[in-house]
Amino acid sequence: MLKSKKILNDPRHVVPELLEGVVAAAHGRLALVDGATAVVRTTIAPGKVALLIGGGSGHEPLFPGLVGDGMADGAACGHIFAAPSPDVILAATRAVHRGKGVLYLYGNYAGDNMNFDMAAELAAQEGIVTRTVRVWDDVASAPPERMDDRRGIAGDLLVVKVAGAAALVLNDLDEVARVATKARDQTRTMGVALSAGSIPETGEPTFTLGADEIEIGMGLHGEPGVTRGKLCTADELVQEMITRIIADLPFQAGDEVCLLVNDLGSTTWMEMLIVARHAHRLLRDMGIVIKDTQIGSFCTCQEMAGVSLTLMKLDEELWRYYEMPARSLAFVKG
Amino acid sequence: MLKSKKILNDPRHVVPELLEGVVAAAHGRLALVDGATAVVRTTIAPGKVALLIGGGSGHEPLFPGLVGDGMADGAACGHIFAAPSPDVILAATRAVHRGKGVLYLYGNYAGDNMNFDMAAELAAQEGIVTRTVRVWDDVASAPPERMDDRRGIAGDLLVVKVAGAAALVLNDLDEVARVATKARDQTRTMGVALSAGSIPETGEPTFTLGADEIEIGMGLHGEPGVTRGKLCTADELVQEMITRIIADLPFQAGDEVCLLVNDLGSTTWMEMLIVARHAHRLLRDMGIVIKDTQIGSFCTCQEMAGVSLTLMKLDEELWRYYEMPARSLAFVKG
Repeated sequence: MLKSKKILNDPRHVVPELLEGVVAAAHGRLALVDGATAVVRTTIAPGKVALLIGGGSGHEPLFPGLVGDGMADGAACGHIFAAPSPDVILAATRAVHRGKGVLYLYGNYAGDNMNFDMAAELAAQEGIVTRTVRVWDDVASAPPERMDDRRGIAGDLLVVKVAGAAALVLNDLDEVARVATKARDQTRTMGVALSAGSIPETGEPTFTLGADEIEIGMGLHGEPGVTRGKLCTADELVQEMITRIIADLPFQAGDEVCLLVNDLGSTTWMEMLIVARHAHRLLRDMGIVIKDTQIGSFCTCQEMAGVSLTLMKLDEELWRYYEMPARSLAFVKG
Repeated sequence: MLKSKKILNDPRHVVPELLEGVVAAAHGRLALVDGATAVVRTTIAPGKVALLIGGGSGHEPLFPGLVGDGMADGAACGHIFAAPSPDVILAATRAVHRGKGVLYLYGNYAGDNMNFDMAAELAAQEGIVTRTVRVWDDVASAPPERMDDRRGIAGDLLVVKVAGAAALVLNDLDEVARVATKARDQTRTMGVALSAGSIPETGEPTFTLGADEIEIGMGLHGEPGVTRGKLCTADELVQEMITRIIADLPFQAGDEVCLLVNDLGSTTWMEMLIVARHAHRLLRDMGIVIKDTQIGSFCTCQEMAGVSLTLMKLDEELWRYYEMPARSLAFVKG
């Protein structure tokens, strides 16, 4: 397996360098937090409930690309594939806090859980109230009875979108946490990997798959999925992924949903569009109504080839927050 | 060189299938043109000057992903890396025409030029007036004295954005063509390839590069660039690309520009952000003012690894159109 080629400077400095890029591209709307690998909005209103997201780097545009108006107020970023440290999270917490508390919203991984919890304790000592919602949308990562063992993957985007809008209009931290929890609980994702991403420092792939192999349900860092099989047609693959997603919530005829087709790194738009086509056909046949479709690179594992499909079941409240305008580097809604 | 793995059905049907995906994801805002590989907006107002874009497929989200409110009214799509046929362009022309003429806006390639010109003649016979603006932003593809030999690459996005906004508010085809021409003339792009994309039907790469080689200025289909060299640091690469772009227009201290960092297929957001960071540093040092930065996958060559940098020099008129809202599958402005 060849080492990957990437456009980098010193691979040990990718995180501060990419965050500098995020801030530059935001044209004054975002700023770095002094001494921390974190970015925050520059115009957080006094008295606003704050939304802080974060996690390991290497999954860009997650998380810093989702900071912006109507989205998250800040992102605390770790090294590549490593949780942000409690002091980074704490520094970001102070930077976003406007007196009404901070909602921590992040993917459910042991390191992130531990460090955000430690930061929450430190914040409490400073009088900053926090609440925590962990995203666990990956249906392949644990059975439904162990929901809180599941990992957070591309569903992060939809939950952050809804929570970001809620945090803009609701004045109560517990209310924002309630909406974020509902969005999380209504969101399910399945991914499939065709080839691995690589680690920037070494150029080594995070796992290997045979020339005609795929792995359904593989995690963002190469965690084992539910089945390894031969590459099949797009329609067969979508059928398998949609069937597993639908069965899990379960989604039912008459449900209204958002659909997210997420590129894990190097999947072409051509493929994603062909995947979206069949997902629409299958869901229509099931009587499930897709109200919005997002396609793009939102939650990646470097240059991993593969896609994930996410459905969020909508009610009137979730749809209202989902439809509100948003402006971040990686996600804009007019 | 391994054949690529892709999520496809019958590789001969990728174009109609991806267009079906585009239409599904547009939720009623777009429709297929009967019997043609083309998509059009469903709500083109009577008396509106129409904007039709198009070109070969395989570069998604270009072109169908740029059809939408405040963007193009339609896209005529060819087979993979092949111009749309005159009859497809003519069918799309009829579908977008609302009595005020149609602007053809597309990349400057021999096949596209021939077929759009033939469609223009056929349209004229039906009483439909057309104008043509060819995008030729790739500074690597010919010297400035042979500007109209240059190819159209990622600059398409910025020119379509401006022309789409102009076509919404100006009631005169020649005026829209004037604005599109100005946007085209103020736009310059340089790309660099690290590895090739592949052709969906065969899985074969379109060219080969050594394990540590890059090619600066390589075209979207593997056309030769200006230099082939060893992989260097991101900062060195950005320096070389920006220097060539700046010298070409030339851009000068005090100029206001938009910056586009475009992924050619499988480049990570991490890399694009690091590239954006150094482009901002260099342009700031030159006294050039970046008013907006776009980062993403807009003009690709399948899973090609590499990026392009585009600058569009703004005046008050171009900035006004650039800043207007837009809503397409691949580009949204709030």
